[in-house]
Amino acid sequence: MTQTQPQPLSLALLGAGRIGQVHASAVASAEGARLVAVADAMEAAAQSLATAHGARVDSIDAIAADPDIDAVLICTPTDTHAALIERFARAGKAIFCEKPIDLSLSRVEACLKVVEESRVPLMIGFNRRFDAHFAALKAEIDAGRIGTVEMITLTSRDPGPPPPAYIAASGGIFKDMTIHDFDMARFLLGEEIAQVQAAASVLVDPEIGAAGDYDSANVLLTTATGKHCVITNSRRATYGYDQRIEVLGSLGMVRAGNQRPVAIETADAHGFTRPPLHDFFMTRYIQAYGAEIAAFIAAIRSGARPPATGEDGLRALQIAEAAEEAARTGRAVAL
Amino acid sequence: MTQTQPQPLSLALLGAGRIGQVHASAVASAEGARLVAVADAMEAAAQSLATAHGARVDSIDAIAADPDIDAVLICTPTDTHAALIERFARAGKAIFCEKPIDLSLSRVEACLKVVEESRVPLMIGFNRRFDAHFAALKAEIDAGRIGTVEMITLTSRDPGPPPPAYIAASGGIFKDMTIHDFDMARFLLGEEIAQVQAAASVLVDPEIGAAGDYDSANVLLTTATGKHCVITNSRRATYGYDQRIEVLGSLGMVRAGNQRPVAIETADAHGFTRPPLHDFFMTRYIQAYGAEIAAFIAAIRSGARPPATGEDGLRALQIAEAAEEAARTGRAVAL
Amino acid sequence: MTQTQPQPLSLALLGAGRIGQVHASAVASAEGARLVAVADAMEAAAQSLATAHGARVDSIDAIAADPDIDAVLICTPTDTHAALIERFARAGKAIFCEKPIDLSLSRVEACLKVVEESRVPLMIGFNRRFDAHFAALKAEIDAGRIGTVEMITLTSRDPGPPPPAYIAASGGIFKDMTIHDFDMARFLLGEEIAQVQAAASVLVDPEIGAAGDYDSANVLLTTATGKHCVITNSRRATYGYDQRIEVLGSLGMVRAGNQRPVAIETADAHGFTRPPLHDFFMTRYIQAYGAEIAAFIAAIRSGARPPATGEDGLRALQIAEAAEEAARTGRAVAL
Amino acid sequence: MTQTQPQPLSLALLGAGRIGQVHASAVASAEGARLVAVADAMEAAAQSLATAHGARVDSIDAIAADPDIDAVLICTPTDTHAALIERFARAGKAIFCEKPIDLSLSRVEACLKVVEESRVPLMIGFNRRFDAHFAALKAEIDAGRIGTVEMITLTSRDPGPPPPAYIAASGGIFKDMTIHDFDMARFLLGEEIAQVQAAASVLVDPEIGAAGDYDSANVLLTTATGKHCVITNSRRATYGYDQRIEVLGSLGMVRAGNQRPVAIETADAHGFTRPPLHDFFMTRYIQAYGAEIAAFIAAIRSGARPPATGEDGLRALQIAEAAEEAARTGRAVAL
Repeated sequence: MTQTQPQPLSLALLGAGRIGQVHASAVASAEGARLVAVADAMEAAAQSLATAHGARVDSIDAIAADPDIDAVLICTPTDTHAALIERFARAGKAIFCEKPIDLSLSRVEACLKVVEESRVPLMIGFNRRFDAHFAALKAEIDAGRIGTVEMITLTSRDPGPPPPAYIAASGGIFKDMTIHDFDMARFLLGEEIAQVQAAASVLVDPEIGAAGDYDSANVLLTTATGKHCVITNSRRATYGYDQRIEVLGSLGMVRAGNQRPVAIETADAHGFTRPPLHDFFMTRYIQAYGAEIAAFIAAIRSGARPPATGEDGLRALQIAEAAEEAARTGRAVAL
Repeated sequence: MTQTQPQPLSLALLGAGRIGQVHASAVASAEGARLVAVADAMEAAAQSLATAHGARVDSIDAIAADPDIDAVLICTPTDTHAALIERFARAGKAIFCEKPIDLSLSRVEACLKVVEESRVPLMIGFNRRFDAHFAALKAEIDAGRIGTVEMITLTSRDPGPPPPAYIAASGGIFKDMTIHDFDMARFLLGEEIAQVQAAASVLVDPEIGAAGDYDSANVLLTTATGKHCVITNSRRATYGYDQRIEVLGSLGMVRAGNQRPVAIETADAHGFTRPPLHDFFMTRYIQAYGAEIAAFIAAIRSGARPPATGEDGLRALQIAEAAEEAARTGRAVAL
Repeated sequence: MTQTQPQPLSLALLGAGRIGQVHASAVASAEGARLVAVADAMEAAAQSLATAHGARVDSIDAIAADPDIDAVLICTPTDTHAALIERFARAGKAIFCEKPIDLSLSRVEACLKVVEESRVPLMIGFNRRFDAHFAALKAEIDAGRIGTVEMITLTSRDPGPPPPAYIAASGGIFKDMTIHDFDMARFLLGEEIAQVQAAASVLVDPEIGAAGDYDSANVLLTTATGKHCVITNSRRATYGYDQRIEVLGSLGMVRAGNQRPVAIETADAHGFTRPPLHDFFMTRYIQAYGAEIAAFIAAIRSGARPPATGEDGLRALQIAEAAEEAARTGRAVAL
Repeated sequence: MTQTQPQPLSLALLGAGRIGQVHASAVASAEGARLVAVADAMEAAAQSLATAHGARVDSIDAIAADPDIDAVLICTPTDTHAALIERFARAGKAIFCEKPIDLSLSRVEACLKVVEESRVPLMIGFNRRFDAHFAALKAEIDAGRIGTVEMITLTSRDPGPPPPAYIAASGGIFKDMTIHDFDMARFLLGEEIAQVQAAASVLVDPEIGAAGDYDSANVLLTTATGKHCVITNSRRATYGYDQRIEVLGSLGMVRAGNQRPVAIETADAHGFTRPPLHDFFMTRYIQAYGAEIAAFIAAIRSGARPPATGEDGLRALQIAEAAEEAARTGRAVAL
């Protein structure tokens, strides 16, 4: 950045854990903003991250009260999101919050009401929208290259199941894992989902079943005009973090395949072998996390609506609840 | 074939149309059988095919009565299949019949009863089981390479919709098009289908809708143990005949992608371009048709059960009927 | 073939070995010709092949004298080619001969003189020109899709080295193996080769070195206008028969990659694996052998110049001799 | 970086142009070092870069005299490299210098003598060694996965030719462009080059020829044990910056293909299309530049020999001179 550029935005980070660190690095690489404060219930974590980025450690109260702070990045545990959003909305700060806002639809609705009244920008962390490959796929659709979108296939598989403790607090596979796909479905279809069908099983880990959740699911979404989206989820893909999108339109098809950390191929008498995919969502989507924060900063600067809003978070959650019901009852659930 | 081989089987072909010609060529290339007679309501068609293969033109009656004919290949219109199967079963001939046996479940059941009483081998033309790539995929599963099968994704898209007249007689997308996928699902899952969910739309051609059919469909199959199969069908894929299989298991994944008639790639300032896929199922599956007939001949010779039976045809039809109901009602249909 | 087609050509096959059998099957599948006679020094081999194709066993003398025979396919050992070509040229038969005509340039030149005087069509078995993928690549060039051809890369690697006895009679790697690439270079460059540079080593099998030959070679061809072709050869590629072409032009690039007998991919914790390539040139090029014979038949019927002539055979041999000298001396050899 | 880590190294950057900016960003992202000073003949360029990274602008004299500066990154024009290396070697600084050290072999040798006497670490910017994919390919070789290395194919093509003014000062295609491939050849072969053959033409731009240079070249390298490396270069590839490596060994093959900035594929009636490759070496190798600087920092910290030394720079230049002679004379040049 040169001296002729405008004053950078001052950002505070709430939550110095794994995803907080990713976002802090994204801020450091972005133009037009700098990290000035870090808050975390664990003082040492906050201090380490603050030191690495030349920021100060501060309390949530102090951050909310600081008139020089323009925006906050909420990276704390899910059950604190809604209250923090409300607090910083009332404090007049721009807000970026990791998904989900809350696991309860009514809580989310109440929270968004506060945001609306406060007229602050709120962006939700649907990072996949910012992946360069998925964004390019979306651009092809928008450019009319495949005509009218008709059928979408989303494949999302985790390398391995999370520990049972995580499952318990996750809200279940549809709210925790498929929710990203629900958002992508809406993003790519360009229409709201009208009907949800689902089939879900426990095939990977009986403990997941014991916790009342599924580990393998297929969901069929239909819009009012009859467009479809199929989502395939599994908590286990031994070959890595499997993330693919395919969109069929009236004039053609566009797809984005998996990205590979090491793109070599070795051949011998047993065949041709390529290494596994990424083993972690953070390495797979590292570029997307950076682009997401850049988009947040750009939206604040320009005054434009953030590219993934609280409304988007709410809609995805509604679809997740419908999918739960559909999987349980075998009946198509209308939205 | 050398002089020491056994006497070749004598085959008769009923129906000298497009698929009949494909099977006649398959017999010509196969070892252990020769085409001796051709019957068709259109004399000229029968004569042309018979001449090309050194066979005689004959009537259905004469073929049924000829003690030197070992087997028949039924390639006539669908509505004649059941009666011809019954007739040649009673005549003691081994029977290969194109799918479907009939569009009516009760008619199929009655027909299979006759076959059972006659104790003749009956093989149904589920050609995809014999595709070299799909067969290799199945062999990987059987060898335990991916562990226990969990989730299957079948993508089947036609290059373009058939004429309205074809739709009217086809029995609808599930009995006409998806039926191949239903058979592959059973073939690959190794379990019977317990539940069917479906969503279907008219997105390609309103005339298809006017004829009471769908042109775009997604089907979710679930087995009693919770394994899933997702089937994605469209009557239009501008880029060619799209035929893919992907199977996720507990230890890994195996997939078979599209085959290309011309496997070149041209690159310029606009990017890297590969030609479209096959534009016709017969060119895509030409090898499979040959292997299918070879398997039929081998089954007759060895006395083994044919690799795709009347029972398989019946099961696929049952799933198709369930899918129709599921798409219409939005409810999961149990089998 | 229908009754309205012209009288089929009558072909005789000389040499009932491996490649002879391939060509006999190609004739059986082709339209417009039939195999009527087979000759081979080994009576049993001739008889077996003749029986399989409904042909008679006959002597070379009788075939040459038979006025009903239109053409011969010469599939005998290399050291008999030139004499047989001369004999059947004088007998007025159209001739297809496996490459090479002879290992001696002067012998080839003398032979071609006889052919020229006899005014019979002579086609040389450069099968790769007829591969559907390579032919499509050529069509892209001819259509101007990549502009002016500038640089070609040919990769040809055998699955494993031949036995030492084969090497001894082969004429060396350049006349035996690279000769196919020399022909493809001329075919694709559309210009004659003006200069040859080469580097060759014994890296695979010391016995090949002991026989005075190389098993690993790279050749650089340059035309008068400065276009280049690089050829990479090895007698050993553990992953299968490796056959690739890439052509760079002023406007872009076109390439044809390897064909796979089984196109599946299996993924697990160790990565993504595809099976090896074809392990044998006959399975890799089975389609090309069929198209080659069809082109020979079409050339005879139409009276057109065959698509790979004796002149083409001579030129490739000249380049092979130059490559030998270049590899031995390290000096560019002008043609 | 946490508080327990050692004092970061202080680096100065000489040359604030395009590649200097890339290295400055690499230092910013690296752990264990910080940029403290920037020098450039153009004051404004130095100031802009210094401001962006929180460094000061300073003169070369002052940087050389500053005892707190541990190392310099030389990113100035080529003709200043050798003198700057000598100066900072005598000043006792660790040195990273962009390739080449100089276009004159004798000048390079004199310079390396000074470095040796000064006993400072010198690393040359052969960035491709640090590309994650090429490094993984090297790791496969080192792990014995393909057995003994036999033949290497390096394809390097620029998106488009540089302006004539650049050519004039570049030292010619072999010293400017192929030199990267010469380094990779040595890096991957694990043996020194014993013989060089080359063919080169002007096919892209007559002005390049008028300047006495080539724009299209193929080089054949041979080691004392008979291993080969083929290098294919062109100054124009309309489809983007083409960078591929393939290594054949006694047990198999390993390759690294092109990386794509946008990895989507769009299919329609005209076929399947992927976007072009990167259009610039800096975007293609952005990860490699970062890894390169990290390796430089790590080498200084550990006291280990840098992974690409002045000796490596000298050897590559020797091969380049031999290639020039080989292309001019058509004779293999021994090293």
